[in-house]
Amino acid sequence: MRLVMVMSGGLDSTVAASALIHAGHVLTGLGFDYGQRHRRELDGLPAIWERLGMQGRVTDLRGVTSLLGGSSLTADIDVPHGHYAEEAMRVTVVPNRNMIMAAIAWGFAVAQKAEGIGLGVHGGDHFIYPDCRPEFVEALEKTLALATDGYSAKPVVLAPFLRGSKADIVKRGAELGAPMELTWTCYEGGEVHCGKCGACVERREAFQLAGVPDPTVYH
Amino acid sequence: MRLVMVMSGGLDSTVAASALIHAGHVLTGLGFDYGQRHRRELDGLPAIWERLGMQGRVTDLRGVTSLLGGSSLTADIDVPHGHYAEEAMRVTVVPNRNMIMAAIAWGFAVAQKAEGIGLGVHGGDHFIYPDCRPEFVEALEKTLALATDGYSAKPVVLAPFLRGSKADIVKRGAELGAPMELTWTCYEGGEVHCGKCGACVERREAFQLAGVPDPTVYH
Repeated sequence: MRLVMVMSGGLDSTVAASALIHAGHVLTGLGFDYGQRHRRELDGLPAIWERLGMQGRVTDLRGVTSLLGGSSLTADIDVPHGHYAEEAMRVTVVPNRNMIMAAIAWGFAVAQKAEGIGLGVHGGDHFIYPDCRPEFVEALEKTLALATDGYSAKPVVLAPFLRGSKADIVKRGAELGAPMELTWTCYEGGEVHCGKCGACVERREAFQLAGVPDPTVYH
Repeated sequence: MRLVMVMSGGLDSTVAASALIHAGHVLTGLGFDYGQRHRRELDGLPAIWERLGMQGRVTDLRGVTSLLGGSSLTADIDVPHGHYAEEAMRVTVVPNRNMIMAAIAWGFAVAQKAEGIGLGVHGGDHFIYPDCRPEFVEALEKTLALATDGYSAKPVVLAPFLRGSKADIVKRGAELGAPMELTWTCYEGGEVHCGKCGACVERREAFQLAGVPDPTVYH
């Protein structure tokens, strides 16, 4: 199946892309510049796409996210340290981000007569991110189908790790030889991963739980 | 209720905004610059907002719509003349446009703690635009609710003319004194409305059917 894959340059969507390619799908990557402070993540996309043997584009969403201010991922608020799943991490939420990206990805897919979209969302994010839950993805798929009824095939939304954990992603990534070493997770955006922000803590933990050597250089 | 109202500068969303304000809602307008050739439509928004006593913003979506190419509304394809509902008008569709705009509007609404979004979609568009149909709007509302569950009140999606025709809109606009003379419909984007493109034909017809004097200057 031909899919537009929403990709951040992070671990989850990179391994999800590997898994979908392994399953026989043909992917076009789509990255979003929404003014994230950890722009290093996006900068890694071309190398990831090259390694995965796929094409991709990055689109400019900065005008839109200037409307959505208030999240520490885009605005000038300190990124909280500590475990990702803590209440404090709620400030890292950009309201409705996954639905906005999915809606654009499906528009792009229809324009190139692709048959669906791929997402890197995973079960570990359900607690704080409602737009990573299975019931959201199901409703999304139905709404996308109604939105373009008569102009496209009925879309599929594939999220291979929707019911998996970040450790499952690392394990699968290692099996598939996914370019995990090219991915970026840290919210601080330094030369190397800080190792302390919620995202770094979660990344480290996932490699440990998976029993996979962590290729990441931490500060 | 506080709502973010998706507004194009055209007739439908302007009268829908008037109707929602008349019903007691407080609106913030949101326009989208998606590289439309009839940019005159967007240029009218500030005057419309002033007349309606509301605030509004226009956001830049050109980066995104460069992905979606192929529609004569954005690309360099001749706009077909004739009645709007004809098969030929299908080339004016931007894939998944309403869902993209609604998803962004809801993100903007959540960021300002508003309770829903308003849309100007109407029944006359159902034939060619699947994302103007009641079943799409219902699925959209459900998906928006799941996307931001825990971060917002359950959103409402209000589309006062969802089951109405364009003539109903004109009739209601006249009753409410909506600034219909400030709205722009023509796809050609000249000094005055061309009177010949599908959108102009439909506009003229709606005023005639409604029995309301048409304030539009046609070429």
